[in-house]
Amino acid sequence: MPNEKLNDIPQWTGRFYNDGVQHEDMFDKLKEECGVFGVYGHDEAASLSYYGLHALQHRGQESAGICVSDGSEFHYHRGMGLVKEVFTNDIMQNLTGPVAIAHVRYSTAGESRVANAQPLVFKYREGDLAIATNGNILNAPEIRKELEREGSIFQTTSDTEVLAHLIARSRHEDMLQALKEGLKQLVGGFAFLILTKERIIAALDPHGLRPLVMGKLGDAVLFASETCAFDMIGAEYVRDVQPGELIIVDKNGIREERFAQQQRKALCAMEYIYFARPDSDIDQINIHLARKRMGRQLAIEGFVDADVVTGVPDSSISAAIGYAEQTGIPYELGLVKNRYVGRTFIQPSQALREQGVKMKLSAVRKVVEGKRVVMIDDSIVRGTTSLRIVNMLREAGAKEVHVRISSPPFSNPCFYGIDTPSREELIASAKTVEEIRKAINADSLHFLSKEGLQEAIGRMDEGINGGHCMACFDNDYPTKTGDFSKQMISRV
Amino acid sequence: MPNEKLNDIPQWTGRFYNDGVQHEDMFDKLKEECGVFGVYGHDEAASLSYYGLHALQHRGQESAGICVSDGSEFHYHRGMGLVKEVFTNDIMQNLTGPVAIAHVRYSTAGESRVANAQPLVFKYREGDLAIATNGNILNAPEIRKELEREGSIFQTTSDTEVLAHLIARSRHEDMLQALKEGLKQLVGGFAFLILTKERIIAALDPHGLRPLVMGKLGDAVLFASETCAFDMIGAEYVRDVQPGELIIVDKNGIREERFAQQQRKALCAMEYIYFARPDSDIDQINIHLARKRMGRQLAIEGFVDADVVTGVPDSSISAAIGYAEQTGIPYELGLVKNRYVGRTFIQPSQALREQGVKMKLSAVRKVVEGKRVVMIDDSIVRGTTSLRIVNMLREAGAKEVHVRISSPPFSNPCFYGIDTPSREELIASAKTVEEIRKAINADSLHFLSKEGLQEAIGRMDEGINGGHCMACFDNDYPTKTGDFSKQMISRV
Amino acid sequence: MPNEKLNDIPQWTGRFYNDGVQHEDMFDKLKEECGVFGVYGHDEAASLSYYGLHALQHRGQESAGICVSDGSEFHYHRGMGLVKEVFTNDIMQNLTGPVAIAHVRYSTAGESRVANAQPLVFKYREGDLAIATNGNILNAPEIRKELEREGSIFQTTSDTEVLAHLIARSRHEDMLQALKEGLKQLVGGFAFLILTKERIIAALDPHGLRPLVMGKLGDAVLFASETCAFDMIGAEYVRDVQPGELIIVDKNGIREERFAQQQRKALCAMEYIYFARPDSDIDQINIHLARKRMGRQLAIEGFVDADVVTGVPDSSISAAIGYAEQTGIPYELGLVKNRYVGRTFIQPSQALREQGVKMKLSAVRKVVEGKRVVMIDDSIVRGTTSLRIVNMLREAGAKEVHVRISSPPFSNPCFYGIDTPSREELIASAKTVEEIRKAINADSLHFLSKEGLQEAIGRMDEGINGGHCMACFDNDYPTKTGDFSKQMISRV
Amino acid sequence: MPNEKLNDIPQWTGRFYNDGVQHEDMFDKLKEECGVFGVYGHDEAASLSYYGLHALQHRGQESAGICVSDGSEFHYHRGMGLVKEVFTNDIMQNLTGPVAIAHVRYSTAGESRVANAQPLVFKYREGDLAIATNGNILNAPEIRKELEREGSIFQTTSDTEVLAHLIARSRHEDMLQALKEGLKQLVGGFAFLILTKERIIAALDPHGLRPLVMGKLGDAVLFASETCAFDMIGAEYVRDVQPGELIIVDKNGIREERFAQQQRKALCAMEYIYFARPDSDIDQINIHLARKRMGRQLAIEGFVDADVVTGVPDSSISAAIGYAEQTGIPYELGLVKNRYVGRTFIQPSQALREQGVKMKLSAVRKVVEGKRVVMIDDSIVRGTTSLRIVNMLREAGAKEVHVRISSPPFSNPCFYGIDTPSREELIASAKTVEEIRKAINADSLHFLSKEGLQEAIGRMDEGINGGHCMACFDNDYPTKTGDFSKQMISRV
Repeated sequence: MPNEKLNDIPQWTGRFYNDGVQHEDMFDKLKEECGVFGVYGHDEAASLSYYGLHALQHRGQESAGICVSDGSEFHYHRGMGLVKEVFTNDIMQNLTGPVAIAHVRYSTAGESRVANAQPLVFKYREGDLAIATNGNILNAPEIRKELEREGSIFQTTSDTEVLAHLIARSRHEDMLQALKEGLKQLVGGFAFLILTKERIIAALDPHGLRPLVMGKLGDAVLFASETCAFDMIGAEYVRDVQPGELIIVDKNGIREERFAQQQRKALCAMEYIYFARPDSDIDQINIHLARKRMGRQLAIEGFVDADVVTGVPDSSISAAIGYAEQTGIPYELGLVKNRYVGRTFIQPSQALREQGVKMKLSAVRKVVEGKRVVMIDDSIVRGTTSLRIVNMLREAGAKEVHVRISSPPFSNPCFYGIDTPSREELIASAKTVEEIRKAINADSLHFLSKEGLQEAIGRMDEGINGGHCMACFDNDYPTKTGDFSKQMISRV
Repeated sequence: MPNEKLNDIPQWTGRFYNDGVQHEDMFDKLKEECGVFGVYGHDEAASLSYYGLHALQHRGQESAGICVSDGSEFHYHRGMGLVKEVFTNDIMQNLTGPVAIAHVRYSTAGESRVANAQPLVFKYREGDLAIATNGNILNAPEIRKELEREGSIFQTTSDTEVLAHLIARSRHEDMLQALKEGLKQLVGGFAFLILTKERIIAALDPHGLRPLVMGKLGDAVLFASETCAFDMIGAEYVRDVQPGELIIVDKNGIREERFAQQQRKALCAMEYIYFARPDSDIDQINIHLARKRMGRQLAIEGFVDADVVTGVPDSSISAAIGYAEQTGIPYELGLVKNRYVGRTFIQPSQALREQGVKMKLSAVRKVVEGKRVVMIDDSIVRGTTSLRIVNMLREAGAKEVHVRISSPPFSNPCFYGIDTPSREELIASAKTVEEIRKAINADSLHFLSKEGLQEAIGRMDEGINGGHCMACFDNDYPTKTGDFSKQMISRV
Repeated sequence: MPNEKLNDIPQWTGRFYNDGVQHEDMFDKLKEECGVFGVYGHDEAASLSYYGLHALQHRGQESAGICVSDGSEFHYHRGMGLVKEVFTNDIMQNLTGPVAIAHVRYSTAGESRVANAQPLVFKYREGDLAIATNGNILNAPEIRKELEREGSIFQTTSDTEVLAHLIARSRHEDMLQALKEGLKQLVGGFAFLILTKERIIAALDPHGLRPLVMGKLGDAVLFASETCAFDMIGAEYVRDVQPGELIIVDKNGIREERFAQQQRKALCAMEYIYFARPDSDIDQINIHLARKRMGRQLAIEGFVDADVVTGVPDSSISAAIGYAEQTGIPYELGLVKNRYVGRTFIQPSQALREQGVKMKLSAVRKVVEGKRVVMIDDSIVRGTTSLRIVNMLREAGAKEVHVRISSPPFSNPCFYGIDTPSREELIASAKTVEEIRKAINADSLHFLSKEGLQEAIGRMDEGINGGHCMACFDNDYPTKTGDFSKQMISRV
Repeated sequence: MPNEKLNDIPQWTGRFYNDGVQHEDMFDKLKEECGVFGVYGHDEAASLSYYGLHALQHRGQESAGICVSDGSEFHYHRGMGLVKEVFTNDIMQNLTGPVAIAHVRYSTAGESRVANAQPLVFKYREGDLAIATNGNILNAPEIRKELEREGSIFQTTSDTEVLAHLIARSRHEDMLQALKEGLKQLVGGFAFLILTKERIIAALDPHGLRPLVMGKLGDAVLFASETCAFDMIGAEYVRDVQPGELIIVDKNGIREERFAQQQRKALCAMEYIYFARPDSDIDQINIHLARKRMGRQLAIEGFVDADVVTGVPDSSISAAIGYAEQTGIPYELGLVKNRYVGRTFIQPSQALREQGVKMKLSAVRKVVEGKRVVMIDDSIVRGTTSLRIVNMLREAGAKEVHVRISSPPFSNPCFYGIDTPSREELIASAKTVEEIRKAINADSLHFLSKEGLQEAIGRMDEGINGGHCMACFDNDYPTKTGDFSKQMISRV
């Protein structure tokens, strides 16, 4: 999803991370697009969706939506803000019915953009249809242009709307046939949840670029972007949805079909490195443990003699502990995150900021003073945040600051649903490791190797089923990108 | 617009009348559908729209919306609630640009119905398009079914969306040609304001069923459902839009065209009787003065010897004063309205209501005690409210209560944008005047004659240009209704 | 109560009149201080207070509070804003118990002034005590200084707190004795409602300057500033509290005592002219009828040949109708009030105001154009509003504007609870009627005579029981004012 | 402060911990009473207070307040809720002036209890006075009773109000003398910040039971309960306030005086164990490092062979890492906290809770399945939470669960500002360690020894200056408790 109005965003309004925490340096962190959640067959489908979305809040903090079917009509609500802000008791009480899909989204900031919040809801000849997506469709602009030429009207700038039109215009009378036909035309990485009055359908792109898991709670069938949504509601994990697969759940039970052959598996490695919650499993691999392995591997590849290891909270803590365990250097709380929850927090004046009021991280002087510090972070995007943290540690008295990154240099934009800056802005695209080290004022700098990362995640021995998309590190995109990516970049 | 979910509406949430006041007896009052407002060529187009909508608040209290074009893109916001609730300073600041259309609407109560709030905004091959309507299109369901058959997707249940699809699917490349072609297909009573990036277009149905006026403020051109919106912002009235007319305003100035021949003029008489604000002029006739004339005429037709004249606030005050002046019986404040502004007002418990906590009207004992009271009201729909008010006056000590209604018996449903109950529920459809008198417990009852009403409004001598739609009184609908009206009724 | 921070008030935030409507010209209208309401012996005492306060909202729109006793402890809530804004369902649910006092207040604007919101709640040796007042205590500053000298701590700048300290410091062990002793020391106009855990006490100053009525609802006993609060909840009026009287309601029933001999009755005439709601009775005289009589009397004293009579809404409508009836000149809706409810209403920019966006009143052109207009208003304070309205009528085409005021010239400040400007700012203090006429640009101007006012209100034949305070018109203050008033003025 | 209305608290509304996170099991965790913050001599004193309070939010999440002096008058605001909820931009703009004191508080839940929110503000003979406290005054009820006997009126149930009355009633004309005289009469543990129009005064009880630090930011002087408030705003730590000390800051600079001789130092050990933020230093000892030492010492005292170490978030993470480092057993993220921020979060239905919707903690199956787990927690109060967490780990597949507590058994109530249950409810008061082990279903259980705790904190070699209050562990209360504590307990 392009940022149509970047300049709308107030200077200090950052991304909301895990737990609704704002980061000041939004432009130096990657942004996941979305999280999806679905329920079939539970009396409190909307409530489960609410808690499920809350567990997925780290995947999108700018809008949230739930659409429920009661068997005869849809009830839905979408709004800008965190799940807990968008849904009130009054609203929840209207969302009655046993089938639901739900969505959290990172998006542009304008209030008027609520039209883009998902699930998108449509009325067509067969009745009501709602769609929630995580991911990005590379050829959506092309398809859209063609549809408009034929007289279609669009409500949103969302790629997702394209799929609805493909279904509505299909010659297939059967909705499932029409859906399969539509999905086949899409190029990209996408996890779809689709709701009709009587069923829920899950679909994953042929490379399995985005995570999507199936679970159950009693007789109810669930879908979610991450397993943490199941843990929160006491549900059980069943299996990961497979690349190219289509799972239909209705009163006849669960049907597993395909709209496309599975291609080389290419699950986004960044999910393991940074996006997913540490207590989630993706492909049955626990994220916290994978990150610890990355930290251990990083210690093997990039050992440095030091007094303390510290991690940049929250996403780098697991890797930092792994690094500390591998090296025997004690892990310490050298950096503390100040949590500014929600948009009502009053921002400091320029004068106060200049005097040192900190909106995000503090270094803990007693911990780092006079010490040689290893600072673990998950990635470097533009480098500006890393520079700021290194300087903060130095100001708090650190004698040396050695930066260790638990992923390879990030040098290529993502086309599959992660909002990355343009290639020119990626520090690793233009600079060598040594140049980056200087730019961030570190005493030393080491990135985890691509092979080390692959090994830490695991699965690489499973052939077609074990691959990851590492295009951001190695420029090897699993799908065609050609014209599509150019268009997309120009839209950003 | 049909009320899809009447049962959604909490028992005590009534309609918001003039000034955002809730009536407890919503089902015994007629409900206007909408008010529209438009600006071309003013730096603060959104602010003017805000004040204009506020002046039109009595025409729709359940949702409000403004869409502005800055010449290159649209900014819009719509929400459930009163104008002052829907728009905040933050939101207004995003609505930048010199051209705007705006809308207030009476609609179903559910939050999720915000999708039906107008202006509706569309994207099609020629770019962005926004539409705001007052009225009703009788053949919309038919057209819609045909469009869906061809693969169109709808976002709303609103009739208005049909027009957008007709434009998008037209073979005419030129938007104006496509619009005219679309308008020609519509049967009903409608006033449209249409916004594209660079212009605003006003259109009125061939019978002129709904009011629509043009005004100016400096160089800016304005449109509104009523002139009170112009007074509020210090603007000047220019003229009423004519039946079948199309007025296009863009950088080339004002162009006046037609999409249809004018038919017999049939402006809704209820606008004069009840809907419009007393300080508005429609067709250059002031509403307050027209109502006073109705009251005078009513006194001539239905004189009764009495001690005081009182009116049911707010809409019947002018008629009551006219009645008092004609008869010499003093006008008194015998009924007082309690104003419960907004939806946050806490509703009384059942126990308190039984003990007499009043949510709307009080009779003033000192004024009516021991008196023969003439009670003026504008209309009787089901009769339940009239019964309640008569009893209230009796409990406050009135010796006699003579009800005088400043319009003829309301016996036929409206198909042109007024939300009336079905024919069976209209008390005047089944009962004689004497039966109604008994049902409402009045000592006497008189309705204004159709001829008296026509004369009080005026204009009847202007032939084709001076007619009014009185179908609700005389069953003489100006358009075909046939199958359309049956469909519509079944949808309600 | 002094306005400590007049400059805090934003330019366009005016007083809220009847029904929560903001006036733009707050500084040219008088401001009532407060309304009080009390309940003894009803399961839903807090809810009754809520509706009662709502009916009294016109007496104070800036803070509201309810304090309930459940027999063992107090539950209370106070806040800035209208009744409906201050109390939510959640808050109401905590206010459990059968005895309550409640208060609305006009006060200074600062959020931090919530400490001054009433009822004030105290803890002293005998337990809990809550007090709500309407009025002003002239010698409060003196008493306060003395109390502070002895080591008392104050929480508020409210005069009311003085009474609590007098009770707490009394040598009388019995609370009633202590209260009487305290009340005797107070000089001024005041109506008190006092709550202890088990009873409610009402007390009125020896001149009966402020209105206070007793009512009943079933077995429950009620008190209120005006009878409209009883009508709203279906309660019955019992009687007016008498000057110098103390009414105690507890489980032993109603006891009627005195803390002082009645002095010459001096009920504030402004209550009839302007403050009270038209449907209220004070001293069994209906306000609307009294105002009509003022209008009739004004017509007799100040007849002028004209085409239409119009009133400045809302408080002058009754007088205008009286004037019209007396003269036979038709009453017309020549001025319409735009209702801007609540503080969230967005204020127009300077540019828009200069272009004519009106925030309060509009003249109705069709009604006044080419006409000789009699404009009835209730009072002239500074004269600025009158000038503005006269000019508005002229701009709308009025040929002549004759101003008639339904009270004598307002030339002296009030010391009994009405927030008047200083004497220098009162236009009638310095100028003759002819000079005022010129200042407000009227063709003619007439004020109602003091005798005419007295006659219109009635009761003047009842000797000591029938008098009114007209000090603002005739400088005849019913109490000592001496040093007290000087102090008070310097505090303003 | 006693919980007057425990039954007011909704079942699922728990205490807000660090970062505004609600715990479901509020009654099994200790509750700190308050945090204080003060500024002298900064243009943005209120803003600094806002950020300072935010950093201290973990010390009290139920009310917040700031009182500023501009040299001639006070501006203040207090409200129920988190700092970010209580203060809006509008409110902050009114809080102008260079001197401020501020407060966060844990208190009873009722809205009406806002009266107890601090800073308390008083008016007495010398002018305005505001007080903010952390701690508890054991003999406050006695002093209060005496004051009430003499005619004093109280506004709150807060102990703090007693000090204001002692000042107001003192024969000393000089405020400082009166303050010292007042402080001398108080028995308990307390840190006061006192604001007059021109100065700020800090005072600490003679045993130094509560933490209080002084800092600076440029020329401004600051006070806070913890150093993390200084770090957040970029200020420097200067020193800890000493027991019995009085520090006065005004235009003449900083004066350091005493109101009492220092007694045996008895700083609350629970601050190190549980209350304070890990990045704070108290007595120049960093909390995180102290906790790690506790964990290491716990590993020495209570080693057990196991596969993983996990900590109960958030307060036990540091100790868990210390335990892991000492033993070489890997630290893992075995428990994850779900963050439910704010009171608007919708609570699950009973049905959903029974199905396993979790409101606080989840065990991470992939981490603990089949493993022998060492679970580190900071304390056991009633034992119910510990049982729940142990069972949660077992349900997630843990083979063994060994509980290690980083403090001695908590067996005595606190009288110095911590809201502990009665002695009977403290599991360690009645049960042996083995009995507790059974009660919480652990495979083994070990508490840190008192000596081990003392050593881990450090300072024990500093004699009078290095002691800690461990009364909750060893029943050795530093002050008289006698009748006071009985009274206090009976009030709870």
